[in-house]
Amino acid sequence: MQRYFVEPHQISDREVTITGDDVHHIVNVMRLKPGEQIIVCDGRGRSCLARLRQSSANAVQAQIETWLDEQKELPVQITIGQGLPKGDKMEWILQKGTELGAFAFFPFSSERTIVKLEPKKEAKKLERWTKIVKEAAEQSHRSVLPQIRGQLSFKQALETGAQYTRCVIAYEKEEQAKLREVLDTLVPGDSLLVLIGPEGGFTEQEVEWAESKGFQAVTFGPRILRTETASQYLLSAASYHFER
Amino acid sequence: MQRYFVEPHQISDREVTITGDDVHHIVNVMRLKPGEQIIVCDGRGRSCLARLRQSSANAVQAQIETWLDEQKELPVQITIGQGLPKGDKMEWILQKGTELGAFAFFPFSSERTIVKLEPKKEAKKLERWTKIVKEAAEQSHRSVLPQIRGQLSFKQALETGAQYTRCVIAYEKEEQAKLREVLDTLVPGDSLLVLIGPEGGFTEQEVEWAESKGFQAVTFGPRILRTETASQYLLSAASYHFER
Repeated sequence: MQRYFVEPHQISDREVTITGDDVHHIVNVMRLKPGEQIIVCDGRGRSCLARLRQSSANAVQAQIETWLDEQKELPVQITIGQGLPKGDKMEWILQKGTELGAFAFFPFSSERTIVKLEPKKEAKKLERWTKIVKEAAEQSHRSVLPQIRGQLSFKQALETGAQYTRCVIAYEKEEQAKLREVLDTLVPGDSLLVLIGPEGGFTEQEVEWAESKGFQAVTFGPRILRTETASQYLLSAASYHFER
Repeated sequence: MQRYFVEPHQISDREVTITGDDVHHIVNVMRLKPGEQIIVCDGRGRSCLARLRQSSANAVQAQIETWLDEQKELPVQITIGQGLPKGDKMEWILQKGTELGAFAFFPFSSERTIVKLEPKKEAKKLERWTKIVKEAAEQSHRSVLPQIRGQLSFKQALETGAQYTRCVIAYEKEEQAKLREVLDTLVPGDSLLVLIGPEGGFTEQEVEWAESKGFQAVTFGPRILRTETASQYLLSAASYHFER
């Protein structure tokens, strides 16, 4: 069944008001008629089954039939801090990361970052990325809509670490510390920040700096993963670990 | 260090002869000179450190210095049977699957396959795919070069199942059987075949047919993964499971 994310304020006790691009999707793409059902999510984890009541050019009204008890979310909230990659790889990372259960994303720049996200283009990029994540969340049947935050410097990324239960930094030269040791310490409700370097990875100094701030350097297996593959490894492993 | 795959017959007791596109890569792209070192793999799991001796337009000679004891391969050989997807997704699946340790791939057609791989175009496609896999294997530091086999029908894909220790079919409607139960039964040296449907997935009848042939239907977590994401989930989970 088709799934749509709305802002919590669009949901009242018994009714949902859908606006924006989703109106076009419901009316013209899916060609849904009054009486047909959809799933509506508030993006914070609450989902309901709703029946379409009426539609205009700007809004679709649907009546809430029942609240759903869905278990679609990773029990640990994982935030992907991604060194801004080249080309359209960030779009792929966001789409796949959303399918695989990421809770939030932010891009950051570090010593080996080649691509610069210019401040005047950032708003437009964030808008496009938000759309990609929303579509992926609907398609993969998420009940939480992953957040995308603005670009940080590496220093700022390290500073945000204090907000999470655990923080790791992906480092291909790390041969001892395994991801399992970190995941084993986490329990449902905990949060994990993962920093993944851009194409050239992190410098030794950056890793040392992160470690001094409480980050654990971890390796994602014995093969060298490209920057756009690392988050998918981490999220798949976390799903396998927690969602038995 | 740069890594190149050669055919076993190109490796003698003490010397390696590199031919084909890799000559251009060594001489013109990497601009490596006599005396510099490379890693050479026979694609079957043997790797050596070799020192460049001389190069011509068609061949590079390198002297083997030492055989390496690399542990780069998943202990269970995983073959990805992929329902042929739209666009260039197959290329992505091959590149990422190689990074994540797949042993072999084959495309297949099933009831919901939309893209047809025409016989006269298949050879050209296989050539392109082989190149993508070789580059990904070199970049991710594999010691085995994954094989790509020709397209099969769904029936043929099921018939090949007899060659593997275990066979699974990815089915999003399967709610009970978990991947872990399958991976727990495998030991190093075993082989696993995973069938992943095209965009529309498998029909109920196809899954029943596979089950009657000894395939286990498994789900890859509570979210719906796109066809190009499923193999990455499976391979990452297998890496996490086996490569502790």
